[in-house]
Formats: sequence, C-alpha cells, structure tokens
Amino acid sequence: MRRFSMEHYRKFFNPHSIAIIGASEKTGPGSYNLMENLIKEGCTARLYPVNIRAGEVLGHKAYTSVVDLPESVDLAVITVPRTAVPPALRDCVRKGIPSVVIITQGFADADEEGRRMQEEMLEIIRGSDTRVIGPNSIGVANAFDNFHTSFQPFDLFQKENAMICQSGMFILASADFTNGLGLGVDIGNAADVGFSELLPCLARDSRIKVINLHMEGLTHGREFMEAASKITPSKPVVVYKSGRSTEGAKAAASHSASLAGADKVIHAAFKKAGVIRAENLEEMNDLNKAFLTYPQLNGKRFAVITLSGGGGIAVIDALAQYKMELATPGPETMAALQAMNPPWLRAGNPVDTWMASLKNGLAKTSVEILHLLLHDKQVDGVIVLLNAYKATGFTVLGEMIDGIVHEAGKFREKPVVLWAFGANRDEVIERAEQSGLVAGFTGPERAARALAGLYGYHQKAKSRNIAGA
Amino acid sequence: MRRFSMEHYRKFFNPHSIAIIGASEKTGPGSYNLMENLIKEGCTARLYPVNIRAGEVLGHKAYTSVVDLPESVDLAVITVPRTAVPPALRDCVRKGIPSVVIITQGFADADEEGRRMQEEMLEIIRGSDTRVIGPNSIGVANAFDNFHTSFQPFDLFQKENAMICQSGMFILASADFTNGLGLGVDIGNAADVGFSELLPCLARDSRIKVINLHMEGLTHGREFMEAASKITPSKPVVVYKSGRSTEGAKAAASHSASLAGADKVIHAAFKKAGVIRAENLEEMNDLNKAFLTYPQLNGKRFAVITLSGGGGIAVIDALAQYKMELATPGPETMAALQAMNPPWLRAGNPVDTWMASLKNGLAKTSVEILHLLLHDKQVDGVIVLLNAYKATGFTVLGEMIDGIVHEAGKFREKPVVLWAFGANRDEVIERAEQSGLVAGFTGPERAARALAGLYGYHQKAKSRNIAGA
Repeated sequence: MRRFSMEHYRKFFNPHSIAIIGASEKTGPGSYNLMENLIKEGCTARLYPVNIRAGEVLGHKAYTSVVDLPESVDLAVITVPRTAVPPALRDCVRKGIPSVVIITQGFADADEEGRRMQEEMLEIIRGSDTRVIGPNSIGVANAFDNFHTSFQPFDLFQKENAMICQSGMFILASADFTNGLGLGVDIGNAADVGFSELLPCLARDSRIKVINLHMEGLTHGREFMEAASKITPSKPVVVYKSGRSTEGAKAAASHSASLAGADKVIHAAFKKAGVIRAENLEEMNDLNKAFLTYPQLNGKRFAVITLSGGGGIAVIDALAQYKMELATPGPETMAALQAMNPPWLRAGNPVDTWMASLKNGLAKTSVEILHLLLHDKQVDGVIVLLNAYKATGFTVLGEMIDGIVHEAGKFREKPVVLWAFGANRDEVIERAEQSGLVAGFTGPERAARALAGLYGYHQKAKSRNIAGA
Repeated sequence: MRRFSMEHYRKFFNPHSIAIIGASEKTGPGSYNLMENLIKEGCTARLYPVNIRAGEVLGHKAYTSVVDLPESVDLAVITVPRTAVPPALRDCVRKGIPSVVIITQGFADADEEGRRMQEEMLEIIRGSDTRVIGPNSIGVANAFDNFHTSFQPFDLFQKENAMICQSGMFILASADFTNGLGLGVDIGNAADVGFSELLPCLARDSRIKVINLHMEGLTHGREFMEAASKITPSKPVVVYKSGRSTEGAKAAASHSASLAGADKVIHAAFKKAGVIRAENLEEMNDLNKAFLTYPQLNGKRFAVITLSGGGGIAVIDALAQYKMELATPGPETMAALQAMNPPWLRAGNPVDTWMASLKNGLAKTSVEILHLLLHDKQVDGVIVLLNAYKATGFTVLGEMIDGIVHEAGKFREKPVVLWAFGANRDEVIERAEQSGLVAGFTGPERAARALAGLYGYHQKAKSRNIAGA
C-alpha cells in the first residue's frame, strides 16, 4: 500500500493553500460553484483558481495550469470535464501536490472509456507522493475548521463524529444520517484513497469519538479488517452498507464501481472486527446520538417513567425486541414509589406517574421518581415518556425537561433517554438535547435499538480491553 | 350481546346534551378540567355539571344528581373518585341516559376491590339501554364536530381516519401515531363497549376511510373477527397490538385488565380477517398517511428519481426488503432518459438527475423525468428523493415540489412518494403534503413499508371482492 500520512490527512481536511482546477465564474443559486462556497464560508486558505481562460476568478488571480502556481499547494480540487482530468492530475504530480480531490464523474462509475481513464490516473500518481480522493466525489468537509470542497452548500455541525462515505448525500444531509457531522469525506469511486487509509487517521484525531462508514462495497478487505479491528476497542465504528439486496448490489457496482460482495461474508467480517452495522440510515443516526450523548451503559436493566400505561407497554415490547430488560427496582425504591400512589394502585416498573402527580404536579413528581430510580443499584438507565403538548403549559413541560436534564447530569453512567410524542415533539427533544446530557427519540423501538447498540459496544470493548491487557 | 346502535354511536361522538358528573371548579393549566376544555373548544351541546356542592360551575347551573336534570341527556361523563362511580352510574341508568363515559381509573386495572366494582357496574347496566365506555379512559374525540371528553387538551385533525384504543395517548398524540386523527375513542378497560361494538359503526361512518385499533388484548375474539372481516374489503383496518412480548403481555394484563393472548394466535386471526398489523407505532402512522393519500396502487414496480447514486441504492434495498420491485421502464422512456444524459452515462432506474439537470436545472429536469415515468405502463409508482436544503434556493426546491405535486395530481392511480432528507426535511414534506396528492417519508424503508402495506391491502381487497361477487 502507498503511504498515506497524517500530513496527507491534514492537507486534505485543513489545507492552507488550495488550487481549484476548473474554477468557474458562474455564481449564485444553481451554479454549484465550489470556489464561491469556499469564499462565502470564510475559508482562510490561499486560493488559486486554475482554468483555461486565466485572468481573474472571484477576485483571485487565475492560472492556466497548476504548474505555474507560485507555490506547491496543500490541496488541489479538480472539477474539469472528464477528458481533462488525467492531464490536470499529471500537472498536480509534477507540481508535487500531495492531496488531490477529484469531483468529476464519468470514470469507473460510467463506461469503458471512463474505466480506462481511471486506470490511467492511477498510473499517473504511481510512485509519487500524490494521493487522490475520488473521482465522482464531493470531497472533504470539516466543521472544526469551517472548510469543505462541495459544490452544493449544506450544514456541518461541530460534533465529535466523522463519516467516510461513497455518496455525497451522507455529508450534505448529515443531520438525518449521523445526527449532524463534524468531519466528512466522500471517497466516491475510491480509486486511490479508501476506507483503510482514512480510518487510522480518524482514529488518531482526538476531536472524533465516533466513526461512520457508508459502504457500497469493500475492496482491500484484509486491510480494512486490520485497520478497523485496531480502532473499535477505543472508538465505535458504525457502518451502513448499502447494496445488501441483489438489485442493490448491482446498482452499487455501477454507481461507485464497487464490488458489493456477498453480504453475509461482509456481515461476518464486520462482526469480527467489532464494527457495528446499522441496518438502515435511521439506526445510524440514532447510534451516533447515543454514542455522543452517553459515555457508558453498564447494564441492560431499564426503568420506565410514563404518564400512559399503554405507552409503558410499548416500551416494554421495544426493550424485549432489542434484548434489553425491564429493571426490578429494589425494595426501598418500590416502597417510596408506593407511598406516592393511593393504596389500591400498586407501584411497579413502568412507573405510572398519573395518580402520583395529582398531589405535587407532573413535573415535580416525575423528576422525584427519576431521582429515586437513578439512585437504585438495580437500574442501569431510565426511559422517560413525554407527552409533548405545549398547551398543557410549556411551563409544566419545560420544568419537567429541565428537571430531567438536571438529574441526568448527576448520573452520567446511567443513560436517561426520552421518548417524546405529540404536537411539540421535535421542540421538546431539541430543548432536552441542548444539554448534551439526554437524547430524545421519536419511538420506543428507536430508543431501545440505540441503547442496545450502546450496550453491545461497551460490553465488547470491555471484554476486548480485558483480553488485550 | 347487548344492543349498540348507531344512535348510541351518535350520542357518544356528537351529543347534544352532556352531564359532567364530578364537574370541578378548579381551572387553568394542570387542573385537567374536562368541562373547561369542552367550553374552550366551543362545544355547542347543553352542559349540565353535576357535583355534591351544586351551585354553579363555570357559568352553568350545577345539580347534585343526574336524576334531577331537566332532561335525559345524550351523554354522561363520570369523573368522580372510584367509590362514587357505581352510584353515579346507577343514577344514569335510572335517568335513561344511553351513553356513559367513565374516566375514573382504579377498577379491573387496579386491585381486587376495583375488579369487584367493575363487575358491580356491569350488573347496574344489565337490562338497560345504557352503554358504558371505560372505565379508565379519556373517552371520545371527534374533530368533525369539535368535541372531546379528555381532561388533557390536545389537537385533533379533520382526517378521514378513526382510532379505537385502550390508552388515551393514541388520541392525545395522534399526529405521531396515526398521522393525525379525525375520530378517536379510548375504550380503557372495555368493561362494556369494546372493539366489536364500535367497529361496525365506524364502518358505516362515511367520514371515515381508515380504521385504527390499539389493542392490548382481545376478548370476544369471535365477535371481533366477524366484525372486522366484514369491514376490511371496503375499509383498511390497521391494528397496533402491544403486549407482544411476554413482559409486555403481563403489563397489559394489569394496565387495562386485558388478556393479551398468545401473540401468534392473534396474529393469524388478524391475517384471516384481513386486518393489517402495524409492527410499531411508526408503521401505523405511515400506513395511515399512505391510505389517506393514495386511492390505489395497482402493482409493485417502482421507478426512483434521485440526485444521489448512493440514495438510489438505499431505495433499491428498501424496496427489496418489503418485496416491492424496481420497475424496468419501456424502451421509449429509456430512450428519452438517455437523450438527457451525456452518451457515456447510461440511463437506468434509479434515474440519476444530476448530469441531466446541468442543462435545464434540477427542478424542470426532475419534473420532466417524473412525467416520463408516470406515463410508462411498466411503472406503478415513483419514489422521488429530495435533498431538502433551502439554501440551495427554496426557489429550486419549491419549484420542484410544486412540479412534482402537479404531475402526481394527473396520475392518481400511481403513487408519487417523496423521501426527503436534510436540514429542511420536515418543511419540505409539509409543503408537499398540503396538496393531499403526495406523501413524504423520512427514510426509504418507511416509504417502502407503507407502499407494501398499501399494495397488499388493495390486492387482498380486490381478490375478496372478486370472490364475493
């Protein structure tokens, strides 16, 4: 394998100087001008537009070739039509540019001629220090340094997670797929740089706590397994592999020229390497939320606080579905809970708050019950149901959320999870999550699935660390 | 079985006169005063508060017993403490009140004494025309006539769907569970009126197109099966049965005094009766969205329009997971699509819009492609991916949504479904759904699952109607 150093990594994600090969003067909505995006977002790197007309682009002196630039830049981004890509790449190598992103599509993802040109590009960089991300990629994105190479504008989030993907949408719409992303890289056709090169760098990046992969296919399986196995005991690696169906695998082969591989074989490999497979994008999103919110989960016994008996039963079913358990609170807790109820209503888990709340109100009562449960050694975490309807008073709801967050902050080793439903669901979840101490979900299965992932990871990491000690 | 007439049904859901037994003078947030709610929401029925103090409640003359009311009201709502419930119910029978909602909890859902009192209540109504909904219920809700008996305020929606549930949360937070609800009834412990009484009435109610059930357990299985089997060929019946896990079944037994029954047996019964089982609340929500949006779905061959190759593959996997198929558009369609691409990029399904859009812009191109696909006899429906990011111009996004909706309106027999992702996802879905012509989902699995439910229902209904003809 050719060398991919932390210096390459730095120059891809936080370049101090950038050549934009194929820089365009067309600006505004629908122009997809990546240089315009760079400038708008306050990129502080030195920018060198390169195009055949030279002159000036967006206030920067333009060059007809990277060879003529006054310095050998950290990063070149190539967006010229596909036939012009190989000569442009040749110039980058000649100039000694270490990091090149190729946006242009139409290579192994297209026809025979494209495949030939992709081979030619690999020939061009052979023996050089130049490494290529792409082609058929939107490149890199870095929220920490406010930098990205996408021609489409989007939002990044300074979250402690990263994503290596084969489709730009995972970066462009990260709020839906990884609950907001700190670092992203679209490897596209992965002609040169792939998962195995980037994984060790992300593992060493102290800003990153969770690494996500969107994988359409896996080449270099052995290198990937080696790299992943080293990382998973200290950082969770979550993978969404698409192309799992026969039809999907066929489409993946043409989209990013990936060999999807037998899904079962890859599944077993993930398991062996400690990689967590998300069955769908929603699960990937929820796993990121759980990993970024909760430092640990030491057991699978959950207490449930609910205003609704029916809702409590839905949580029990969801816990059972994901092999989590219903806690049996200790006798002291049970006695305290029973004392809040009328004698004819037996306290239990789920803890029904309705009758208890008639005395001190719902907010105070719920928080008091949460405190009792978090104190109990028989309880590893608590799921709280919230009927998120503001008209019942955001006074009550707000007091309840703040109280829950406050208690959660005192017991960081025991996840407190919300299932919010109703008209103001999203607002309630947002308000609670601002604390960074609790995560909110829109259904009991989503909550239970994320908790099961969290539990499984910590159990496995623990046993690996013990084995490795 | 005792008689439950359409007149009972009308008096429960749209009473012209109501006695509130246990009417309270405590008002404002946290007081959970159902009479206050009734008045606030503009209830036009004649209201008769009944409580031990008499005098006046919220501007209405109060009585110490329903027996003293100047008329025999359509509906009595009982909210007194549990020991006062049987005498109050006896008064209702004596007064000849046909419809009684019992809100109070603490009966078969509580202790031995509660169970005894519930039996006593059944004795009290025996031989009379009085029918009881509850106890342990929030009662009924009716968006069409702006009426409900809940002590908690909430939103109703004038949608053509109904829900019979055993937990008030399904009515209170219907936006999450049935995509907004037109009619709702919480049967609580279902001591008297249950699924089998209400189902035939909802079937006859022309305002209702979809009937939902939240079931914790099933008693009177034979009556239920008979009622359901008659309805399902003309109206979809969707059931969410909780208590499917052993732990959940135990909890259901104490919450609403339900016998959960062997889940497998019940599952088989649902299938036989043509009842659609939603695996979770999210699925129930999405099925309602699909049934209320799309009048039919005649086949399972879907075309996919996408800006992202990776997103297209995720849809293919999701279609395969739910046994839907990827359409093979006819040669004319393929030729037209190919003409929009550069020659080196082969057109296919999913249809990738990116290269094609470089000429006429994304909105126009996407809508043109949608039109081609909807015209094709090989295509039964179309899934459109939307990167919902406003900063790319809500101009573009808005034009795209409006164009999609317009096309969808021309082909009502072919569902056009959106998968929206990204920062402005919810706003985009809301804008599109306002038309009533397309439904938006937040993930490809949710879209495919809902379409599979829609397809399965129409296939089954067709074969039943043919068999029955």
